[in-house]
Amino acid sequence: MKNAIAELKAKGKAAKAASHRMAYLSTEVKDQALNNISGDLLANKDEILANNKIDCKEAEASGMNTAMLDRLMLDSSRLEGIARDVLAVAALPDPVGEVFDMRTLPNGLLIGRKRVPLGVIGTMYESRPNVTVDISVLCLKSGNAVILRGGREAIHSNSALARVIQDAATRAGAPEGAVQFIENTDRALVNHLLKMNESIDLFIPRGGAGLIKFILENATMPVISGGIGVCHTYVDRSADVDNAVTIAFNAKVQRPTVCNALDTLLVHADIARRYLPLAAAELAKAQVEMHCDERALSILKADSSLKLVPATDEDWGKEFLSLTAAVRVVDSLDEALEHIERYGSGHSEAIITEDYSAATRFLNEIDAACVYVNASTRFTDGGQFGLGAEVGISTGRLHARGPLGVRELTTYKWIIFGNGQVRP
Amino acid sequence: MKNAIAELKAKGKAAKAASHRMAYLSTEVKDQALNNISGDLLANKDEILANNKIDCKEAEASGMNTAMLDRLMLDSSRLEGIARDVLAVAALPDPVGEVFDMRTLPNGLLIGRKRVPLGVIGTMYESRPNVTVDISVLCLKSGNAVILRGGREAIHSNSALARVIQDAATRAGAPEGAVQFIENTDRALVNHLLKMNESIDLFIPRGGAGLIKFILENATMPVISGGIGVCHTYVDRSADVDNAVTIAFNAKVQRPTVCNALDTLLVHADIARRYLPLAAAELAKAQVEMHCDERALSILKADSSLKLVPATDEDWGKEFLSLTAAVRVVDSLDEALEHIERYGSGHSEAIITEDYSAATRFLNEIDAACVYVNASTRFTDGGQFGLGAEVGISTGRLHARGPLGVRELTTYKWIIFGNGQVRP
Repeated sequence: MKNAIAELKAKGKAAKAASHRMAYLSTEVKDQALNNISGDLLANKDEILANNKIDCKEAEASGMNTAMLDRLMLDSSRLEGIARDVLAVAALPDPVGEVFDMRTLPNGLLIGRKRVPLGVIGTMYESRPNVTVDISVLCLKSGNAVILRGGREAIHSNSALARVIQDAATRAGAPEGAVQFIENTDRALVNHLLKMNESIDLFIPRGGAGLIKFILENATMPVISGGIGVCHTYVDRSADVDNAVTIAFNAKVQRPTVCNALDTLLVHADIARRYLPLAAAELAKAQVEMHCDERALSILKADSSLKLVPATDEDWGKEFLSLTAAVRVVDSLDEALEHIERYGSGHSEAIITEDYSAATRFLNEIDAACVYVNASTRFTDGGQFGLGAEVGISTGRLHARGPLGVRELTTYKWIIFGNGQVRP
Repeated sequence: MKNAIAELKAKGKAAKAASHRMAYLSTEVKDQALNNISGDLLANKDEILANNKIDCKEAEASGMNTAMLDRLMLDSSRLEGIARDVLAVAALPDPVGEVFDMRTLPNGLLIGRKRVPLGVIGTMYESRPNVTVDISVLCLKSGNAVILRGGREAIHSNSALARVIQDAATRAGAPEGAVQFIENTDRALVNHLLKMNESIDLFIPRGGAGLIKFILENATMPVISGGIGVCHTYVDRSADVDNAVTIAFNAKVQRPTVCNALDTLLVHADIARRYLPLAAAELAKAQVEMHCDERALSILKADSSLKLVPATDEDWGKEFLSLTAAVRVVDSLDEALEHIERYGSGHSEAIITEDYSAATRFLNEIDAACVYVNASTRFTDGGQFGLGAEVGISTGRLHARGPLGVRELTTYKWIIFGNGQVRP
């Protein structure tokens, strides 16, 4: 253990040293690193897949369920997809070096802010080996060094991928040490990793609620996390009913297992009798189970083809991550706003309305990372928002909110050009 | 204690509730609140000064030193100054509501980011009662609710000021509860305050290194702190000697007790014999004690009018906060960069040079909140940078770096205008 801690600290120190050089690496070198990684992933396909096979066999033997096994598994086509995604990140504009707010002060000082990398990004994630590539590539693109700590179940796959990445990046001219991989998956070591605030500037966990909570509670460096999305769609009295059916269906059904999917449908009482039967019939086609409050239940109960369950208090504010939706009838926009303020997780919220003032109030008063008028919350995504790839979706308030693209992995420094100015 | 904790939590809850309304308060109401505060500070001068007198008497009786007593003391002229500063903040542009990065996506979604307040800002500070007004006013201007926890030694002054602020703000239409003041200065209560991450979005400590360290180690919410500045000025071989003398003198002497004052002077060996005697003679006029490395000492020791001390290892990376400077001769720009990387605190660093490439390298490679060419590090200040008033100077990397103005007390939310878009 003592050796393992020393080795961990050495990796932190090496990443920090590399980060100083990474900060002013040219765009050309960074993009070359990414292009090399993409090519090398394909060139080393056999080795990577062989290692992945070891992980999958061990996981199967240990009784891992099919869904998790599927997330762990790599094959030619998945690896080709990963390699293509790397090229897409390479093609993004370099966020580093942008100069903004530049101006000349009355005393002649020319002053502005210049975008620079954050430094060293630590990350801990579970199963999916593609995260090793995703995060490394986004960090390299944004000029950050990275420390990777993947799950035990993917250790052979992750090791093989990390070796390929490290080799490809240094060959392009990235500093040795910019990508650190922690081979030792001893859980006790994570506690030490989370205290390395002298060498890690930001920690980004990727995984389930348990992992994120653990890291938030134990990390001494800043953490950006998200992952939990309790998303509401509010159908206003003035909503276009067809739009409202289509949007709610998409938000719930298009990919129910993710954080930006609909959890609770709020419906204005004045439109509920017209809207709910249509929406419920549509949702029923996708086998959605609806947990309804009393009023919604009384409107829908006649239709025996629906999967209806009386809602309990626990349904409000619950992230279902499945084909389940809570449904509540409200008497006013105010009641909808109050419900969302109380139960929302600050992720993505939508109003469906043709009423200009209602739309404006919803946009102004809802406090969430992403607030929609007449669109599906499923759009909350770095790629969909035009940020290119994303590192995650933050529900925190500081630094960055919503989808985190490569720009969100940077900070700025003030640069000041003088010619002898002193403070009077 | 149990009651005190319940009361503290109630204040947190009230602040959070107020923050939701603060978020969309009009600029007019916020500015009216600030104008009211300014006027009321003067209208309640007698009461405020009477309370301050109680604090000062108690502090004197308890043996507080003169410098600290001076920081605690208010008089008519100081109060008038504080009231004027409030008007200056009122006159700043409202950072809230700014919309940026707005664009139309190929699917027709109109998407952008809108600047919104952070929410509730917690703060803990020492002695100076003006901080009660400063922080309240900056928070109100930026649409944030605030929880104030001042020092025990200023409790009567702070209570009186908080009452004036609360009354003036609500009279203007700010929500009840937007400014919370903690009357109970029991230190044990602070531990509870620092765990209230459900009601405090950001904690900003203002005070000495001990206070800041305590808060960083114990707070469960994000903290932005600064305060520690180990600032270097590097005189390059090509420096204009007169400029270099004037700038180093200003950086060290103009106000030696603050974080942006010069701590270490690095001088290129090629210019040291010309530069150091002139700089030292100037610094000596202000009684500056110079802690010199061997080479600097050998150049300066002939002049017996100088206060010279051989530097020890502890002088590098030390924040003197007094008329003391460490001095080191380096052989190259690289050596200067390495010294600053090793010993700097990421606050403010300057190069004095006429060499274009040296200036460029310094700007690119130094990792600090503020990097200067040919100017005094004393400019690192929200007012000097044109941000209006400042909450503090951050040496952290996340969210904001360097001086924190009212804009830095905000975050953004994504706003998305659709007309029926769903994710394919």
